[in-house]
Amino acid sequence: MFEGILENIREKKPLVHSITNNVTINDCANIILACGGSPIMASDSREVEEITSICQSFVMNMGILGVATEAMILAGKQSNRLGHPVILDPVAAGASCLRRETVEKLTTEVKCSVIRGNVSEIKTLYGTGGECKGVDASESDKIAKENLQEVVQMAKILSIRTGAVIAISGAIDIVAHQEKVYLIYNGHSMMERITGTGCMLTALIGAFCGANPEKLLEATAAAVTAMGLCGELAYQKMVTQDTGTLSFRTYLIDYISKLDTATLQGGMKVEIQ
Amino acid sequence: MFEGILENIREKKPLVHSITNNVTINDCANIILACGGSPIMASDSREVEEITSICQSFVMNMGILGVATEAMILAGKQSNRLGHPVILDPVAAGASCLRRETVEKLTTEVKCSVIRGNVSEIKTLYGTGGECKGVDASESDKIAKENLQEVVQMAKILSIRTGAVIAISGAIDIVAHQEKVYLIYNGHSMMERITGTGCMLTALIGAFCGANPEKLLEATAAAVTAMGLCGELAYQKMVTQDTGTLSFRTYLIDYISKLDTATLQGGMKVEIQ
Amino acid sequence: MFEGILENIREKKPLVHSITNNVTINDCANIILACGGSPIMASDSREVEEITSICQSFVMNMGILGVATEAMILAGKQSNRLGHPVILDPVAAGASCLRRETVEKLTTEVKCSVIRGNVSEIKTLYGTGGECKGVDASESDKIAKENLQEVVQMAKILSIRTGAVIAISGAIDIVAHQEKVYLIYNGHSMMERITGTGCMLTALIGAFCGANPEKLLEATAAAVTAMGLCGELAYQKMVTQDTGTLSFRTYLIDYISKLDTATLQGGMKVEIQ
Repeated sequence: MFEGILENIREKKPLVHSITNNVTINDCANIILACGGSPIMASDSREVEEITSICQSFVMNMGILGVATEAMILAGKQSNRLGHPVILDPVAAGASCLRRETVEKLTTEVKCSVIRGNVSEIKTLYGTGGECKGVDASESDKIAKENLQEVVQMAKILSIRTGAVIAISGAIDIVAHQEKVYLIYNGHSMMERITGTGCMLTALIGAFCGANPEKLLEATAAAVTAMGLCGELAYQKMVTQDTGTLSFRTYLIDYISKLDTATLQGGMKVEIQ
Repeated sequence: MFEGILENIREKKPLVHSITNNVTINDCANIILACGGSPIMASDSREVEEITSICQSFVMNMGILGVATEAMILAGKQSNRLGHPVILDPVAAGASCLRRETVEKLTTEVKCSVIRGNVSEIKTLYGTGGECKGVDASESDKIAKENLQEVVQMAKILSIRTGAVIAISGAIDIVAHQEKVYLIYNGHSMMERITGTGCMLTALIGAFCGANPEKLLEATAAAVTAMGLCGELAYQKMVTQDTGTLSFRTYLIDYISKLDTATLQGGMKVEIQ
Repeated sequence: MFEGILENIREKKPLVHSITNNVTINDCANIILACGGSPIMASDSREVEEITSICQSFVMNMGILGVATEAMILAGKQSNRLGHPVILDPVAAGASCLRRETVEKLTTEVKCSVIRGNVSEIKTLYGTGGECKGVDASESDKIAKENLQEVVQMAKILSIRTGAVIAISGAIDIVAHQEKVYLIYNGHSMMERITGTGCMLTALIGAFCGANPEKLLEATAAAVTAMGLCGELAYQKMVTQDTGTLSFRTYLIDYISKLDTATLQGGMKVEIQ
């Protein structure tokens, strides 16, 4: 599993175009670089089509609204025309009317290759609401063994409906395309104690898919697994060194920058359904 | 002193809505998470009232201007209606006409619960000018033993006039509400060698007040003390490890993430007047 | 060489006004502080002339477009009137029509004291195209021994044409003013594995020139050398500590914060032509 995925990134150095929020934009650029890609964060409507044309994938992160939405649609449509993977992160999709409208508009106008969010965000896209408490999944929306198959079912249906790979982050991560599903048990709750692990994962998926466009499902699952595994390693280091949350972020990106296939395959806890 | 303040944050996990500048927005989100809160940085006028309604406090940081001011007023008024604490950071308030007008507009339209700034910024609000050299307090505006009571007096009067808790950062920190004043001797000059310690402190106050709305003065004093104490600890670690300023930032947020009441009470240097 | 340059920064604490992109704005502010300067990132057109007037230098970083361009021109013209050094970073200048137009407009309206970019960006200004692959220099544009004199020649001519010090980042860095050229062999390829080393260097030049306005060529060369040397030291520490790319960034800024003239002069690999 995940054979050659990382090697392709290091060899092809995919240019990843992102339109993303200002909170975590620096972390996103750094994690793309850490894994072997090259980031370009351009959001001016007058140039985004041209910029995205020299890239290998496009990430649209709904953590930024305003004029960015129009830029996302322009770049997304151009990516569609060129056959570049488009990755959508519907940040806090259910938290306001504006966000519900924006996610509706983005998914109508642009064909997404991958959609990554927490359960609450994905439920909003699915149409069953999903209680939204800011940027994190609400307590009632956590993935656990009891509701796992229910969430998997939702991912499959949403994938069939949109054509996209659906990646749902939680205690157990779900990555689904049509009927094929990866269940990923890597990760650590400490990842919720820093800002941007969701955004960074979406950026990482942008790099993984940009370098592996012919296997988007596996590339997305590999990115999710890589993130989870590096989160575990970072947590261990945080405990060993008796540091705290900002050190944890440093370790997380450090481990992504040092990750190789042997470590990924040795540490992954993945089940294919 | 400060009994239960930190515990309330960890238990209630307050959602803190911030409209803040792009320089330090990531640090602010991370320090809110580090102390136990949850940040949401939404600034689109079309959604800020809705977003702030699901939060427990609202921080408006004048380091961003432009259309953000309108969004601050909308979110601030909504917070006022809901009885949520509103925290204002009048960044570089005296540095330009635009900023003097903006701070005037914000404080007229929105009732602030806490106003935190350096002496120069607070002097601008007070109306006695305050020489403004960019984002730092000017040399002539430093707080020292000689002028301490004079600055305390200004804080008290401004508090009475605005109804807000006034927090003034300096070599000695002053936190005042009406006639009650905390003098806080924690902190380290190294905190001026990284960007955003002021913004981060204001964000921290947002989390502390969001979880302790019934005791805003004490919560603000606790946040100021926590920041100062963690600054001291971070400085010691920087010296021990022979590192530099960016490591200092990491240590500072790390220590906030590990802070407990025993450490806070053991390290605090606080005098109540 | 570089006598007194660092000391001037620590003594004068120059205020550096920057209008810069949101990806690396925090790193830029922190590196200005690390070297001894003081950053102010103000980009609202209504105040930039007033803000820049209290500063000692002005940095315009083309990584941000939109309304920022107008603000850059206002602040740049005001800096010109006051005789403050203006430093231009033409980020990804050749990557789109919009950027080519923007760099043309900026250099026509504002007299630049220093222009710093990679070879591809500088070639765009020079008028010979320069293949542009996003924010990094394209492979065909790398500086090596074979094409060194050709690039030096371009730098000299561009310097004569614009009146500016031209700083070109690459495996060998070139800093030229008219006929005088510094070749700087410091630096490490790891610097390309984090975002913002280019932006940070430009910010650093802002601080170095702000404190040394009477010797802009030497100040720029000193900043380039300092950045390269600290990159080497950071790489060594990353290897010794077996960490990764985000730790590398921390070490880089840490070393800038600890740099003194003895270390700079002891580690520099500089040749004057």
